[in-house]
Amino acid sequence: MTDKKDRRGLDALFRPRSVAVIGASNRRLAIGCRIVRNLQKMQFRGPVYPVHPKASHILGLPVYPTILAVPGEVDLAHIIVKNTLVPRVLEDCARKGVRVAIINTAGFKEIGPEGARLEEELVRITRDTGIRVFGPNCQGIINTDPEVSAYCNFTFTRPRPGHISIFSQSGGVGEVINNRLCELGEGLRMYASTGNACDLQCPEVLEYWRDDPETRVIICHLESIEAPEHFSQVAREVSQQKPILAILTGRTAAGARAVAYHCGGAIQGGTGESISRASGLLPFKSLEELCQAARAFVHLPRPPGRRVGIITNTGGPGVIAADELIEAGLELPEPGAATRAALRQALYPEAIVSNPVDVLATAGPEHFRAALVAMLGDPQIDSVLLSFVTPFFVDCEAVAREIVEIAAGTPKPIVCVVMTEKTLWRSTLEIFRGAGIPTFDLPEIGARVLGAMVNYASRNF
Amino acid sequence: MTDKKDRRGLDALFRPRSVAVIGASNRRLAIGCRIVRNLQKMQFRGPVYPVHPKASHILGLPVYPTILAVPGEVDLAHIIVKNTLVPRVLEDCARKGVRVAIINTAGFKEIGPEGARLEEELVRITRDTGIRVFGPNCQGIINTDPEVSAYCNFTFTRPRPGHISIFSQSGGVGEVINNRLCELGEGLRMYASTGNACDLQCPEVLEYWRDDPETRVIICHLESIEAPEHFSQVAREVSQQKPILAILTGRTAAGARAVAYHCGGAIQGGTGESISRASGLLPFKSLEELCQAARAFVHLPRPPGRRVGIITNTGGPGVIAADELIEAGLELPEPGAATRAALRQALYPEAIVSNPVDVLATAGPEHFRAALVAMLGDPQIDSVLLSFVTPFFVDCEAVAREIVEIAAGTPKPIVCVVMTEKTLWRSTLEIFRGAGIPTFDLPEIGARVLGAMVNYASRNF
Repeated sequence: MTDKKDRRGLDALFRPRSVAVIGASNRRLAIGCRIVRNLQKMQFRGPVYPVHPKASHILGLPVYPTILAVPGEVDLAHIIVKNTLVPRVLEDCARKGVRVAIINTAGFKEIGPEGARLEEELVRITRDTGIRVFGPNCQGIINTDPEVSAYCNFTFTRPRPGHISIFSQSGGVGEVINNRLCELGEGLRMYASTGNACDLQCPEVLEYWRDDPETRVIICHLESIEAPEHFSQVAREVSQQKPILAILTGRTAAGARAVAYHCGGAIQGGTGESISRASGLLPFKSLEELCQAARAFVHLPRPPGRRVGIITNTGGPGVIAADELIEAGLELPEPGAATRAALRQALYPEAIVSNPVDVLATAGPEHFRAALVAMLGDPQIDSVLLSFVTPFFVDCEAVAREIVEIAAGTPKPIVCVVMTEKTLWRSTLEIFRGAGIPTFDLPEIGARVLGAMVNYASRNF
Repeated sequence: MTDKKDRRGLDALFRPRSVAVIGASNRRLAIGCRIVRNLQKMQFRGPVYPVHPKASHILGLPVYPTILAVPGEVDLAHIIVKNTLVPRVLEDCARKGVRVAIINTAGFKEIGPEGARLEEELVRITRDTGIRVFGPNCQGIINTDPEVSAYCNFTFTRPRPGHISIFSQSGGVGEVINNRLCELGEGLRMYASTGNACDLQCPEVLEYWRDDPETRVIICHLESIEAPEHFSQVAREVSQQKPILAILTGRTAAGARAVAYHCGGAIQGGTGESISRASGLLPFKSLEELCQAARAFVHLPRPPGRRVGIITNTGGPGVIAADELIEAGLELPEPGAATRAALRQALYPEAIVSNPVDVLATAGPEHFRAALVAMLGDPQIDSVLLSFVTPFFVDCEAVAREIVEIAAGTPKPIVCVVMTEKTLWRSTLEIFRGAGIPTFDLPEIGARVLGAMVNYASRNF
């Protein structure tokens, strides 16, 4: 049974060779239609078997009246039938040899005692038969691996392959994060939104992603944690290998009350913070900062220490970055004597040779290069925050080319804040994007992202 | 002299009838070219007089060898000549009867004692002649009023007319704010970036905008304050009529050091906070939150109290909003008995009738309407935060139409968080935009914005 319960079930979930959709539909607005369409649009590599008692074809595919009538093997089955029918259908799935069921249907624990009894029934079936259950009351999973291309979910975001994997208890929050990363041009590796999570839970997914070489960063949204000690132990171990950027909600009494209504017990008050610490999670309160930090973790090397050099071409944003970096617990040492001499020689006479280094708005590519080389070469500096407002009187594309060239040759991270009008300076931004270097729109975001990276790198696990 | 020093100078600055550009140029990358082009592109209503010792035409306009040779009256002159030549040119301007000079040239107080002496010379000339000086080492101003259309600045953002006015000591920060508001589809009223501010300073500008009926919200970025008591007195008085959303930088020692290099004395440590309080400023640390809050202040009515009702169609984002609202000092009372009864009757049986109200993902326009009407009608609720993830199986345009219709008929603000894929749901977003209702992408942003509005409304000035 242990064997059935472990990793094999997760391969069936994230790398299914075939998918059945029980409760498939031709009605465009039905979840049972959307899932079939999403699998088709994503060009899922295996067969898709719609199951419906009466229909003959759904979205061009032949339909089977029950899961037992499906001819081939089925790794994964979506169940979208009425809540009271789910246990019987799940038993049929187990009989058919389905390895994991994503139960999208709602109306379980979250609606009270009657739903809770139904959910207990599901747990009993998993225990008796070995079939794994994902959900109920959940969205499902996505795996962008081109060898798999599984969109077993009814949402709208169309991610491209990438290196961030998202675990979200709440489907709404998961979709918002996924969509925001898409807007930022960032790819996704895998996605899992578990809803009630009566069987398959967060720790198993984290372990699976720990062992997935293409997952470089894990995002984790949690509202409640069933077995906090087990969770912490697993998360701590996973986070030694990959950062887990977390948003734990229900911090306040009102938030916790909302969670209780939404999905049962909440992570209350200080509990969230202590779980976070015990688990090695990097905590975020803002979804925006979480998404921005995830981009940095995917693309930038880890800072070896907390000493940052700021290079800016306009004073004001440099000051904002300085305030934020200090408040995040980082340091802004003065450049060493050799660095100062190099900067003095290379920059305009009015340039400010301190930390922040202000190369001035009129600085061209040679000045940016000199400033980056000098600061990155300073043994007192572990990383650079570059604050670049694009002046119309400077060859900004040439500046961008210098920056990406230097970034490619240094083990220290350069966090690039590029403040610009995005249509006029599209080609400048393309140079960063083409080189895989994320740019951040605002100095406080760049600084907070760097703070998160340093805090992860400096943890004692 | 008092008379020359006051309001008349500000009309010349923000509503010039004619502009001279001393140091105009045909070189596309020169500031003296950019300013002439910006005036032309913005379709400035008055004459533009390029001044240059040798050129005959600049961007199609006849050129005058000195300001004294300009035939008509000149309200405003840009000065872009070498720093050591500026005092003589400024004296010529005064002799010509120019009312205000924007000195874009750098190389004054910010470069040390020699520059400081030059700057003192400018102050002496303003005192002796009555000409006003804006700058030096500054960008300039913008006024989008269609009767004026003055783009006396060398930056790139092309704002459309609106109701937010931006004061920024740092040109870089001002431009970043202006650009971000543009990206958000928000209009600008006036813009002023003063640089060294040797004569015309923030308080006079604030008073001018207090009296400008089209300015509804003021954004203020400050790194240093010359006369804190005077500033506080003026700001406090202005903020009783219009919110001043402020970002005071140089909070940390490193930030303050950077400010000192950048523009002289800084607002240090706790000073910023106490000035903020004494001045009635609404403080922000994040440029993004500042810009988002400005949009809310422009478009939404003021909340009469701190009791918020959350209406959501997905649990997770509602919990995030709840946590943020509580942490911002707001309250989430349970709906009254009558409200609960109305909600029970109108919503799906599984809907959660609490605060947050969860109408469920399947809720249609009639459910959103019923929830809004019930919560807005509850005397225990001062405002609503609506959290709406657009499900593909719901008529989201119809939902949007209900929301904007209800918003038009209530004195209580509805802060709309709309989480969606912006191309597929463009038409839904257009319904909000068309009705002048700002939408926010993330629940924490909506909650922080509402927090700022409540904090402004509940201040005792």
